[in-house]
Amino acid sequence: MPPTSVETTAPLRATSDLRTAVSAVLDDFLHDQTAVLREVSEDCEPVLDAVRDLVAGGKRLRPAFCFWGYHGVAEGLPDAGVVTAAAALELFQAAALIHDDVMDDSDTRRGQPAVHRRFEALHRESGWDGSGTRFGLAGAVLAGDLCLGWSDELFSRSELPADALLRGRQVFNTMRTQLMGGQYLDMLEQASSTQRGAAGAVDRARRVLTFKSAKYSIEHPLLLGGSLAGASTDLLADYSRFGLALGEAFQLRDDVLGVFGDPTETGKPAGDDLREGKRTVLVGLAVQNATPAQAEQVDRLLGAPDLDAEGVEVLRTVLTETGALAGVEELISAQVDAACATLDAADLTDSARAALHELVVAATSRRS
Amino acid sequence: MPPTSVETTAPLRATSDLRTAVSAVLDDFLHDQTAVLREVSEDCEPVLDAVRDLVAGGKRLRPAFCFWGYHGVAEGLPDAGVVTAAAALELFQAAALIHDDVMDDSDTRRGQPAVHRRFEALHRESGWDGSGTRFGLAGAVLAGDLCLGWSDELFSRSELPADALLRGRQVFNTMRTQLMGGQYLDMLEQASSTQRGAAGAVDRARRVLTFKSAKYSIEHPLLLGGSLAGASTDLLADYSRFGLALGEAFQLRDDVLGVFGDPTETGKPAGDDLREGKRTVLVGLAVQNATPAQAEQVDRLLGAPDLDAEGVEVLRTVLTETGALAGVEELISAQVDAACATLDAADLTDSARAALHELVVAATSRRS
Repeated sequence: MPPTSVETTAPLRATSDLRTAVSAVLDDFLHDQTAVLREVSEDCEPVLDAVRDLVAGGKRLRPAFCFWGYHGVAEGLPDAGVVTAAAALELFQAAALIHDDVMDDSDTRRGQPAVHRRFEALHRESGWDGSGTRFGLAGAVLAGDLCLGWSDELFSRSELPADALLRGRQVFNTMRTQLMGGQYLDMLEQASSTQRGAAGAVDRARRVLTFKSAKYSIEHPLLLGGSLAGASTDLLADYSRFGLALGEAFQLRDDVLGVFGDPTETGKPAGDDLREGKRTVLVGLAVQNATPAQAEQVDRLLGAPDLDAEGVEVLRTVLTETGALAGVEELISAQVDAACATLDAADLTDSARAALHELVVAATSRRS
Repeated sequence: MPPTSVETTAPLRATSDLRTAVSAVLDDFLHDQTAVLREVSEDCEPVLDAVRDLVAGGKRLRPAFCFWGYHGVAEGLPDAGVVTAAAALELFQAAALIHDDVMDDSDTRRGQPAVHRRFEALHRESGWDGSGTRFGLAGAVLAGDLCLGWSDELFSRSELPADALLRGRQVFNTMRTQLMGGQYLDMLEQASSTQRGAAGAVDRARRVLTFKSAKYSIEHPLLLGGSLAGASTDLLADYSRFGLALGEAFQLRDDVLGVFGDPTETGKPAGDDLREGKRTVLVGLAVQNATPAQAEQVDRLLGAPDLDAEGVEVLRTVLTETGALAGVEELISAQVDAACATLDAADLTDSARAALHELVVAATSRRS
C-alpha cells in the first residue's frame, strides 16, 4: 500500500483530509483481508461486513492525535507511513468496542446494532440450529479478535523506518495491555462497588477512566505519533500531561452523554449507561453526596436490566440534585484548561498546536 | 530478554530442552507484564494468574514445529531469537483456547477449569454483585485479548534481523486471520449442518479442520520457522505439504480423543465434543453412512446440552457401527504416511528430519 500524503500546513483542512486518508487506508486494508478470508470460505463474508460497517462509522479521533503527535515534532516531517500507522488505531478501537459490547451485552453501537446482535440476527434470519445468542457471541468474539490482529498487521505495513517502528511498538504494546487491564478494572468495579463502599468511589472511577479511556483515546495515540517521529522526552512528557488531562475530560463528557445525551445524536438508547450499571465518576460523585433516600434509589435502579424511562428520570434527578452533574462539568472545565495550558507551553510546531486546540474542542464539546 | 540457546545436534534431547527454554521465555515475559498491569491496579493479578496457569500446561508442540522448521534450513544456524519467536505461538494458542472455550461454553481445559469458569468462581467466592456468568465471560474475553496482543509483543522481542521478522510476520498475519476464519466456519457448520445436509458433511468438516487446526497447529508454525531462517520456496512448499497432512492427522486424532478418549488423560469430560455438537469428520462420516434410525439418534443427541453417559454411549456406538471410527483411523494412517514420505524426500537437515519424525509420532499417537 503506498503511504498516503496529507497536507499539513492548514490544520483544520488537514484534519478533514486526514479522515479521508485514514478511511482510504482502512478500505484498502479490509479489501486485502477479503482475499485472505475467502481462502477459508466465502461464508466468512458476514464477519468482514460487520467490521467494515463498524469501522466506517468512526470519528478518526485517535488517528488524528497520532498524526498531530507526529507532526508536533518538526515542520515538514515526511508523512510517509504515519497515516497507515494512525489508521491501525481505528482497528484497535474497533476490537475494543466489539468486545466491550459483548461484555456489556449492549444492543447498539454508532447507531447500528452491536456486532453480536448482527450475528444473532443472521442466525435467526437463516433459520439455523442452536442458540442464536451463542452464535452472536462467537461471531463478535472472532470479529474482535480479527480486528486486534489486523491493527497490528496494519501498523507493521506502515513502512516507517525500523527504529521508528520499534519505538512506536513499545507504545502500542503498553496501550494494548493497559486498556485490557482498565477494562477488567471496570468490570470489577461494577461487580464490587457496593462491597468496596461509597468513600473511594470517585477515586476508583477516575482510575478506571484513566486506563479504560484517557490513555488509549488520547495519551497513547499522541505518544505513538511522537515516538514514531523521534520526539524528545520533554515533548513526550508534555504529550502525556496534555493527553491525560484531555483524556479525562473526553471520557467525562462521554459519561455525561451516556446519561443525559440525546439518543438521536449519541446512537445509543437513552440512559444506556445507567441500565448497564456503569460506575462512572458521575455516579461516584452522586453516591458520595447522596442522602440515604437518594442512595437507596441508586442501589435499586442502577444496573437494573429492566430500567424504564421513569427509572432513568429518577436517576437523572439524583445525579443532578446531588451536584454530581455540576461537579463533573467543573472537572471537565478544569481538565480542559490544564490541557490547553500544557499545550501552550509545550515546545511543538505551530500547526500541531493549532490542530490539537481544535481537537480539544471536538473531544469535549461534542454531542455524540 | 537474552535469546536462549538450545543444543541442536541430538533431536530428542533438543526437543525436551526446547520445552524448558520456551517455558523460561514465557515465564520471563509474563513476569514483565505483571509490572505493566500493576500500573493499572493490583486487582488485575487474577487475569495474569489465569493466563500463567493455562500457559504452563501447554505441550509446546507449535514452538517445536517452528524451531525445527527453522533448523531444517541449515546445520548450525544460530539459535538466537528463534526460541522467543516460537514461544509467541504458545501465547497465540492460549488466546485461541480461552476464546474457544467461551464460545463453546466449555467447563475445562488442560484438566483445569476453563478461564471463564475461573472468573465465575472468583465472582461467586468474593460475593460480588451482578451476574457471575457475565463477569466470567468478560474476564475470559479480556484474558484472551491480552494473550493475542502479547503473542505479537513476544514475537517482536525476538531480536531476529529485521528482514527475517518481516518474512515471519507475513506468516503470523495469515495464521491469525485464517484461524479466526476457521473458527467462524466451525461455528457456522454447527449451526447450519442440518440445513446444508449430510451429502457434503465430510468435505465441510475437513475444510473446518484445515483452517481451524491443521494450518495453525503445524503448517504455519513450520512455515514461520522456515521463513525466519530464509528457507527456499521448495522447502517451504514441502513444509506446507507435510504440515497440512500431519495437521489433518493431528486434528483427526484430537476428534477421536474428544469422543473416545480417557478423561483422566485428555483433561476433558467424556464425550465433551458430542455435548458441544462439534461437526467433526468423524461425525460427518457417520452421518453420511447412517441408517435412518442412526441418523435420528445423531439428530436427537448430538449437541444436546444435557447429554448423559448413556447418550454418549449411544453416539459412540453409532460412530463405531457406521464405520466412521475405522474410516478416521484409516485417514490418520494415510495422512501420516503422506507426511512421512514428504519429509523423507524433502531437502532439509538430518537433525530436523529426525526431530520432525519424532513429532509425527507425538502428534498422532498421543492419548491426551
